[in-house]
Amino acid sequence: MLIGQGFDAHRFAAPDTHRPLWLAGLLWDGNGIEGDSDGDVAAHALIDALLAASGLGDIGSLFGVGATAHGAGMHGVDMLRETIEYLAARGFVPVSASVAIIGNRPKIGTRRDEAARVLSEAIGCQVSLTATTTDHMGFTGRGEGIAAIANALIERRS
Amino acid sequence: MLIGQGFDAHRFAAPDTHRPLWLAGLLWDGNGIEGDSDGDVAAHALIDALLAASGLGDIGSLFGVGATAHGAGMHGVDMLRETIEYLAARGFVPVSASVAIIGNRPKIGTRRDEAARVLSEAIGCQVSLTATTTDHMGFTGRGEGIAAIANALIERRS
Amino acid sequence: MLIGQGFDAHRFAAPDTHRPLWLAGLLWDGNGIEGDSDGDVAAHALIDALLAASGLGDIGSLFGVGATAHGAGMHGVDMLRETIEYLAARGFVPVSASVAIIGNRPKIGTRRDEAARVLSEAIGCQVSLTATTTDHMGFTGRGEGIAAIANALIERRS
Repeated sequence: MLIGQGFDAHRFAAPDTHRPLWLAGLLWDGNGIEGDSDGDVAAHALIDALLAASGLGDIGSLFGVGATAHGAGMHGVDMLRETIEYLAARGFVPVSASVAIIGNRPKIGTRRDEAARVLSEAIGCQVSLTATTTDHMGFTGRGEGIAAIANALIERRS
Repeated sequence: MLIGQGFDAHRFAAPDTHRPLWLAGLLWDGNGIEGDSDGDVAAHALIDALLAASGLGDIGSLFGVGATAHGAGMHGVDMLRETIEYLAARGFVPVSASVAIIGNRPKIGTRRDEAARVLSEAIGCQVSLTATTTDHMGFTGRGEGIAAIANALIERRS
Repeated sequence: MLIGQGFDAHRFAAPDTHRPLWLAGLLWDGNGIEGDSDGDVAAHALIDALLAASGLGDIGSLFGVGATAHGAGMHGVDMLRETIEYLAARGFVPVSASVAIIGNRPKIGTRRDEAARVLSEAIGCQVSLTATTTDHMGFTGRGEGIAAIANALIERRS
């Protein structure tokens, strides 16, 4: 049994950029996240946890960084699916995973089951979601961005 | 084997509110935490990790949010006990859990064994506690509040 | 199977202090970290995760705190090795561990395999490293310091 830890944080885009808000594999109301990807911190932290458990690098080494990277413009769930294919080809199979989302919005609880289903289907095992705020403290509490902490268990079936 | 990740953060109350300080199931000296619950971030993060590992939502979905919620006014340890009953009724049994507490005060190390015993008895398996500061950086470093990161392993015995 | 969670954060020293930068067991270019130890947050968070999984306290209880502590001046990797000896003498064996490093510098990806090898050899099982930034948000985003979140699985062989 192998364990992995992942973390990610992204900044909300200015409202006038009209970026869509992708999080935990779903499209939400409200202005979205800056950046070259869709900014789905839950999917990204989960990818890091899965790659870490497998000893296969992280999201930066697999998808690249920046506007010309392989991962640029990709949705977090598509990156998750590609990560699982990459793991499977090397004998690694996810057992269980979990993401704690930290931010003022969106309200994950309103669509938790839907998001967990999308992420679980992408990975092929149970993915759970919790969500909390930081009582107006820190960058998440000031509404500057969203953070996510993920962990995962992986088995090697070589 | 199922894994869960939890996080929580709460703000210290103003000293003149004379709130008691509950953390990791114990009452500590010094002014306490704002909010509708006892503000025990260690217990709350642990509850999220346990619910996540079981795929049963999070502390907000189980106990509600706000002054009229089911969990309002409850001590963290009582919420932990209720969480374990909720899990047990659905066939989930905790295997091991751990909480990293981040903040300037209280000094966990002075009562770590006592706190770990209280939390372990509430859950029915080993719960460990680590504690650290952030070198005066960020909201925990400025003494605005306390944060906690938790993980948990759960088995399903259906 | 036992699980542990660890966290650590340290502040960058002023450039004119000419402190070396130790992270994840390696010496990096650029100015280093304040403090009584070498400031290796990856090693320190990992030590906390390992001690937590074993139910044996945390880095503060094992190595002390401050300039006169047992751990003062020790390199993170040497502290890791001593932690593993301490665990082994009590029947605990690491199964797998992982660290997520959060900060603007150094660029972990450039030497990830080297760092993972050093940490894995110190612990005697796979240790994985992921690295991310926080989009200029918070104390890590402002370049004030580095943080690390770690988890670990431990088995008891008594």
